[in-house]
Amino acid sequence: MATPTDGTRDDAGRVRRVTRADVARAAGVSTAVVSYVMNDGPRPVAPETAERVRAVMAELGYRPNFTARALNLGTTHTLGLVLQDTLNPFFAELAQSLERAASARGYHLVVAESHGDPATEQRLVAELTGRQVDGLLLMSSGDRWRDPAPRDPRDPPTVLLDCAGPVAGRHTIGPDAADGARAAVTHLAQTHGRRRTGLVIGPDGLASPDPRIVGWRDAIAAHRVIEGPLMIETWSNAGGYRAARRLIETGTLPDALFVSSDAQAIGVVRALLEAGVDIPRECPLVSFDGTRAGEYTWPALTSARQPVGEMADLALDLLTSERSTPRHHAFPVGLVLRESCGCPPTPPSVASDH
Amino acid sequence: MATPTDGTRDDAGRVRRVTRADVARAAGVSTAVVSYVMNDGPRPVAPETAERVRAVMAELGYRPNFTARALNLGTTHTLGLVLQDTLNPFFAELAQSLERAASARGYHLVVAESHGDPATEQRLVAELTGRQVDGLLLMSSGDRWRDPAPRDPRDPPTVLLDCAGPVAGRHTIGPDAADGARAAVTHLAQTHGRRRTGLVIGPDGLASPDPRIVGWRDAIAAHRVIEGPLMIETWSNAGGYRAARRLIETGTLPDALFVSSDAQAIGVVRALLEAGVDIPRECPLVSFDGTRAGEYTWPALTSARQPVGEMADLALDLLTSERSTPRHHAFPVGLVLRESCGCPPTPPSVASDH
Repeated sequence: MATPTDGTRDDAGRVRRVTRADVARAAGVSTAVVSYVMNDGPRPVAPETAERVRAVMAELGYRPNFTARALNLGTTHTLGLVLQDTLNPFFAELAQSLERAASARGYHLVVAESHGDPATEQRLVAELTGRQVDGLLLMSSGDRWRDPAPRDPRDPPTVLLDCAGPVAGRHTIGPDAADGARAAVTHLAQTHGRRRTGLVIGPDGLASPDPRIVGWRDAIAAHRVIEGPLMIETWSNAGGYRAARRLIETGTLPDALFVSSDAQAIGVVRALLEAGVDIPRECPLVSFDGTRAGEYTWPALTSARQPVGEMADLALDLLTSERSTPRHHAFPVGLVLRESCGCPPTPPSVASDH
Repeated sequence: MATPTDGTRDDAGRVRRVTRADVARAAGVSTAVVSYVMNDGPRPVAPETAERVRAVMAELGYRPNFTARALNLGTTHTLGLVLQDTLNPFFAELAQSLERAASARGYHLVVAESHGDPATEQRLVAELTGRQVDGLLLMSSGDRWRDPAPRDPRDPPTVLLDCAGPVAGRHTIGPDAADGARAAVTHLAQTHGRRRTGLVIGPDGLASPDPRIVGWRDAIAAHRVIEGPLMIETWSNAGGYRAARRLIETGTLPDALFVSSDAQAIGVVRALLEAGVDIPRECPLVSFDGTRAGEYTWPALTSARQPVGEMADLALDLLTSERSTPRHHAFPVGLVLRESCGCPPTPPSVASDH
């Protein structure tokens, strides 16, 4: 690792940062030429000069002042990501994919958590905007605050993620949730002969009613299934646990369940097993999200899988490439057949860790 | 929401950012006075003048240029966090606590993931350092790269998290892992009468051998227990699953297991149940971490709990307050008794979501 040279100490012997001027002096060029080498333009620099400047930078241990460059270039190469809850396995996987997609494009993510609180979310959006992030990625919360993104034309471009439907004038990304719900209920009815299917879901988001409710009802009508109880609880393990406990305690457990998130399904599985309910024999279930966490419950979760990698790539493209007209992007979700529906057991994919 | 006024459009009618000069002009003060109002100094400003400047800022929709301020003030109020794997429930909870602790102190986190790859980690540390973060929080990977943090005196202060032991010249934070392991094995021996306890763990980290191996061996010696197999697999669900499969397939499953992380324990539980092994009757287990994810397995994980909130607070204090001499900070871990060890069932704490 480079140690500071004499040139990086001031008269009192204190370490100071090597500046562009130090590099220019040592290389015998102007500070402008140093900038051209660093920024690969705008003016051309003779290859041998550029070579000499780079050698001096390395020798002095020069680190470009990122903050100063950001000010000059008008970009911070930073994106803000506001999450509701990083412990929800779907949000965690989407955040991981967003970080990978950002990193692949030379961006860093400032990550902040709203804990599902609209006021916190609003504050975070304002703070990140004030930091001159180049774009905002929002997984927005609740139904109380319908449009969290800034509308000022001077504010950074924004993508709303985990959106069940369009929001006027916005880039929104989400699953085709109604279709996923239809596939889940259809699978339980057609493949496993279930006649009464309940629904566990969270509070409505920006699109209301949640399209998963619509899809569940559609499939129930189409397959002459009876509508089981509709349980609304928080989008979390605890929410799913509470919903299933209530079904058990009130004697209203249907003969199948569609659970609208893996986070909730993990809690539902725990509550059913604790109460001695056999999954899938007594109560098969299909969840929504298809996270890797759902591979490790026993039985593993059959699930409508959201394509998080593709969603993350599109989100980054929308923020970092040419502006396009805001619209909703719905991604198809496909059923991943594991065990909780009654399909034959499939061991977790253990060949690799990811 | 404020809409741009005429003063924020250029001659071609394009929207442009309101500058400090615009505010100064409209308020009839110098740009220096605007700065003093924004930064609360260094020179005093008459209350009525400050009031007028603030009113003009609000009217024009002025947003201080964060990048320019960072350059002037020499601080970005940003900390870098490098994680190995955001899907590991312990890392996810620690990251969440760090974000809360940072937010409470007025800092934002730039979060990046190394995927446990030392070269990626090194690149991320260099990038974050180049961004002039005010400090670095590292959950470092593997045994191949023993000290990931920059050593240059011009680089930001750094705290190494999830450290099982001291690293010379570093602020390090970690659990008293040997003690937690001793408590786990002692509980299985004394309370549940288990005579042969195996260990599932990941590869060594910065402290080698992992103190959990030391603690497991200590307790085995102290309680005249037989040392069961020692399985080393990745720190993940998949790693735990593979370790347990191997124990089952080779007929070497001991009569109890200490599993060194909740991530692995979730995989172990899944593999044992899949093979028809009764937990806790045939093979009780105690894990390490004590995450909320461990509340939702069935049976729930008895676990040596790491105090993530306290660890996060100390990490932030070390980075943001007066410099102290680098040393190791070991946090006590206490056993959380749930079900996987054979203690009576305890339902998840469902009163609140967190």
